Amino acid sequence: MGETETLSVADDEGSPFDVFSRLCPSRGTLEHVTGRWGSLTLGALYESGARFNELRRRVDGVSEKMLSQTLHALERDGLVLREAQFTNPPRVDYELTDLGRAVATRLLELIQLVEGRMPEVLEARARYDAARAD
Amino acid sequence: MGETETLSVADDEGSPFDVFSRLCPSRGTLEHVTGRWGSLTLGALYESGARFNELRRRVDGVSEKMLSQTLHALERDGLVLREAQFTNPPRVDYELTDLGRAVATRLLELIQLVEGRMPEVLEARARYDAARAD
Repeated sequence: MGETETLSVADDEGSPFDVFSRLCPSRGTLEHVTGRWGSLTLGALYESGARFNELRRRVDGVSEKMLSQTLHALERDGLVLREAQFTNPPRVDYELTDLGRAVATRLLELIQLVEGRMPEVLEARARYDAARAD
Repeated sequence: MGETETLSVADDEGSPFDVFSRLCPSRGTLEHVTGRWGSLTLGALYESGARFNELRRRVDGVSEKMLSQTLHALERDGLVLREAQFTNPPRVDYELTDLGRAVATRLLELIQLVEGRMPEVLEARARYDAARAD
């Protein structure tokens, strides 16, 4: 960042990683954990591990393909653990790693904030739309 | 949710809103604040308000069109305030509302966690890729 920037929030940590920088790998990880399905998948695994189909039910609306892609990205980033059990039929369980749990905790705090403040959001939307309908 | 679900994390708050439910409007708001550019835009406004072009510089890599769409969605949800000043040339400033600041605070906590744990993420990626290169 240029020396006139003031994003000390990101710099305070002394981390060499910076999501505001396009080429930093942390941006990809932030996208995996905050993406359309990544955040819901991590949140859905917070209470307990789950099998694939159980997860699909918890994350209402996700397709099989998208859930599969999401889980692979989260597994690759070390946030989700995939455990295949060689039973017949084979059974695959997913659960959060310690890192995944730390991330999911922050995500759920965000989710609870958003859910709790939705009345304000809906009022703001109504005002915004009314001002433009004049 | 069905009665066998155990997502009490979301239910504990007593909020009627539930991002895990496909049709709940809170899911759209979560997507606005966690989307590819929404999270970075809110984070970039945390330290101080900014004009459009200043924001474009802070959020490295965002296109004019995407930043404009992102700001409109955040403004409609009541997270960002847009203030047009009728100077010549006209000047438009963006800043966080109180609600936007609350959301941005949670987001920055998440961002700092991700940035700080990137060494673990990169190790996990290397292990994952090595296991599949065999």
